[in-house]
Amino acid sequence: MTESNDLTLDPDDWDAFRALAHRMVDDTVAHLASLHEQPAWRPMPEDVRDSFSEPLPLEGVGDEAAYEAFAERVRPYPNGNFHPRFWGWVQGTGTPLAMMAEMLAAAINPHLAGFNQAPKHVEEQVIAWLAEMMGFPATSTGVLVAGGTMANVLGLAVARHAQAGFDIRAEGLQGGRPRMLLYGSSETHGWVKKGAELLGLGSTAFHAIPVDDADRVDVEAMRAAIRADQAAGHHPFCAIGTAGTVNTGATDDLRALAALCRDEGLWFHVDGAFGALARLSDELAPIVDGMEEADSIGFDLHKWMYLPFEAACVLVRDGEVHRDAFSIRASYLSMGDRGLTAGGIPFADLGIDLTRNFKALKVWMSLRAHGVRRYARLIEQNVAHMRHLAALVEADPALELLAPVALNVVCFRYAPEGVGEDRLDALNQEILLRLQERGIATPSGTTVRGRFAIRVANVNHRSRREDFELLARSVVKLGQEILDG
Amino acid sequence: MTESNDLTLDPDDWDAFRALAHRMVDDTVAHLASLHEQPAWRPMPEDVRDSFSEPLPLEGVGDEAAYEAFAERVRPYPNGNFHPRFWGWVQGTGTPLAMMAEMLAAAINPHLAGFNQAPKHVEEQVIAWLAEMMGFPATSTGVLVAGGTMANVLGLAVARHAQAGFDIRAEGLQGGRPRMLLYGSSETHGWVKKGAELLGLGSTAFHAIPVDDADRVDVEAMRAAIRADQAAGHHPFCAIGTAGTVNTGATDDLRALAALCRDEGLWFHVDGAFGALARLSDELAPIVDGMEEADSIGFDLHKWMYLPFEAACVLVRDGEVHRDAFSIRASYLSMGDRGLTAGGIPFADLGIDLTRNFKALKVWMSLRAHGVRRYARLIEQNVAHMRHLAALVEADPALELLAPVALNVVCFRYAPEGVGEDRLDALNQEILLRLQERGIATPSGTTVRGRFAIRVANVNHRSRREDFELLARSVVKLGQEILDG
Repeated sequence: MTESNDLTLDPDDWDAFRALAHRMVDDTVAHLASLHEQPAWRPMPEDVRDSFSEPLPLEGVGDEAAYEAFAERVRPYPNGNFHPRFWGWVQGTGTPLAMMAEMLAAAINPHLAGFNQAPKHVEEQVIAWLAEMMGFPATSTGVLVAGGTMANVLGLAVARHAQAGFDIRAEGLQGGRPRMLLYGSSETHGWVKKGAELLGLGSTAFHAIPVDDADRVDVEAMRAAIRADQAAGHHPFCAIGTAGTVNTGATDDLRALAALCRDEGLWFHVDGAFGALARLSDELAPIVDGMEEADSIGFDLHKWMYLPFEAACVLVRDGEVHRDAFSIRASYLSMGDRGLTAGGIPFADLGIDLTRNFKALKVWMSLRAHGVRRYARLIEQNVAHMRHLAALVEADPALELLAPVALNVVCFRYAPEGVGEDRLDALNQEILLRLQERGIATPSGTTVRGRFAIRVANVNHRSRREDFELLARSVVKLGQEILDG
Repeated sequence: MTESNDLTLDPDDWDAFRALAHRMVDDTVAHLASLHEQPAWRPMPEDVRDSFSEPLPLEGVGDEAAYEAFAERVRPYPNGNFHPRFWGWVQGTGTPLAMMAEMLAAAINPHLAGFNQAPKHVEEQVIAWLAEMMGFPATSTGVLVAGGTMANVLGLAVARHAQAGFDIRAEGLQGGRPRMLLYGSSETHGWVKKGAELLGLGSTAFHAIPVDDADRVDVEAMRAAIRADQAAGHHPFCAIGTAGTVNTGATDDLRALAALCRDEGLWFHVDGAFGALARLSDELAPIVDGMEEADSIGFDLHKWMYLPFEAACVLVRDGEVHRDAFSIRASYLSMGDRGLTAGGIPFADLGIDLTRNFKALKVWMSLRAHGVRRYARLIEQNVAHMRHLAALVEADPALELLAPVALNVVCFRYAPEGVGEDRLDALNQEILLRLQERGIATPSGTTVRGRFAIRVANVNHRSRREDFELLARSVVKLGQEILDG
């Protein structure tokens, strides 16, 4: 049998491909190793921006030219969240090892519905490790998903299923039954409205409860709201606690929320997008005390575990309820206990996606390579850096802290004596833009109690103590520059 | 300013890391270049399986040891869908170039809610190219998502929003209004029930319409069902056409479904998971004629565009409706037309995920490197190989074709003279298991009109004509072997 003339997308010349791959690795390593000397962000030139309107390529230019297009037009103009001085929103950094794990995963490209293969066991082991990290029992179930929104929405979908009291998978919410309602603080992340909409609950099914001065939910106000809604004939079914709010990093009293949910018969879901990881540190764990009592948790590994996007996890305490909410049986997937289908499709039965990639590999390799204790120390370092920044802000009379530093978020502004409140929002917005445009650093902006804040959210394993000192100095300098006109 | 002692997950020694990355590339290239000489699949030894119960790693072992664990225990025991003789379900192969694109994307790790960065323009260009490939207008919108289920569910969510006739984002489906119903053939993929459940419609809101002998939906039966449901006071809102059923690769009469939806005022969604890509080939495009009239399409790029998981796309003809269904405004994301936020967060407004990775890079680089025409020829080759296999089956009196070969799926069985119908299911299941266990090839099994079939679904760019000849020969040989006992 001679080799056929069949087409393929594999390279004609594997040696040439290997050389190109080595070049990609070398360029990438050189780039990553020099990030501290590079701008944190840069605007894109007009001609680069315009170049993205080329017509659909009918004929190919080959692997090498495709790489060169990336190297010239894409790599120099990224979002920048891999940079040591990026602290915008809560966007993780990525790591070199996990980057290579993505390549290794894509090479064997396993389909992670389940199946009888090592990658399935890797994901099961990762889920068991993550459950242990979160203080969840070994009988809990979980699955890796794209991001915090999906992790939280799946938790909410399991809650809806567990609490409905009728066959909601068959009937849906179209039966004219009492309205199913959910509760969380007014600082709950935007996923909750999106999730309530997607699940057909409607965004008005989410009842936002006020927070205290430290952005923590008023638990007694939530209890009163639940009881009032019950008395009005509605069906309160789920309360959400937040571990790490997006604006200020605040965490609800999760122990009190767990007790409330037990008392009132509600499902307790924790949105731990980044805050859940505080549990790894003995020093920080008390902040998320009570989280281990949740019925479900959603959290990200591409935030405070520093992994590249996408990697998030939903854990559900009662594995049977989790499977009941999603499991399917399809004739084209059925087989016995031999061959490739012997592993079943456990992950497809725990969420929405049937085709799933090997997100678990980067988690597995990273936990093995770095160890949980190194993560704990890094998380503590991120928090220590934020306390250092807050101290710098408080020490400088021209700077003002706008919210208590609960975890890894600092909201502050430039507010020198003699500049009126009416001018401060515009002044600080301009400072933020110049920080970004000049490549100094990339914090983001937000509004805290009506005042514009420069917001530093630190889930960056590349930041050094002096990076925050540069930031504080630069804010004052830019502020002065703007005032000097 | 001296370098600090701060911790990081970057390597202490970048040269050593570069050497390790080169080793990963070399091992991977050697592995991919020799796939034809390797078994298609192999069962995992007990000791390897047991090794995945190690405790949570507290201390790290370093990057190199983490790689070695992968090389020894994971890479040798994959699902195998990257192998030239894997034809199970419809699982794509992946390509070497796209594998490296995953590494390049993870290195810069951009956050694809949007933002003012080149990766956003790359995804916008990719969406424009995909819309053109599908015959959709330039004003349509789209977003890359994990898989076909999510792509289709998002299409269905937009349909629900567009057709509700009330503020469904606020109210949900809890208002006791007429039941919203959707329609598709009885061969519609399982995503539709999962989607109806997730969206709160309930699985009984999906009305399965019978198919003809070629597994194509009975359009007049669908019309009758819609009218009967309307007459009963319900609210039919969406019809689903399938381009490439999972069992036999059949495609509905999409032109007729488009007309039906116009007549009856329904949203027309096409599930084109793999079949949609047939449109790239002049020869095969007539099969999906009418698809370009759909209101929305969901399709996968990790199936018939051969990309590694995950990459799927939903396109919506009316971009305004698409955005209306999902758009959000969050204070921590608001800024003007300068700096990093100038790009807005267009992709977060087109789906559920806020954090999204750079799936678009592998699509962009692959379309540039290979060109659309090469994809068209490969798709034609996959279909030609299936016709060749079908001809081999029909030429051999011991083999039997169980369904017409509509596209890229062949369902057949070993059915030699003298073996009764009651023995054929078990016989062919055993043949399938031995094909897998001996590493010969990995088709999957299914049931076609009550009979167990060996099912070959070909979205594999590595398969050669002789691979299918080996399969046909092996089925007969194994069947004889089993009968000889």
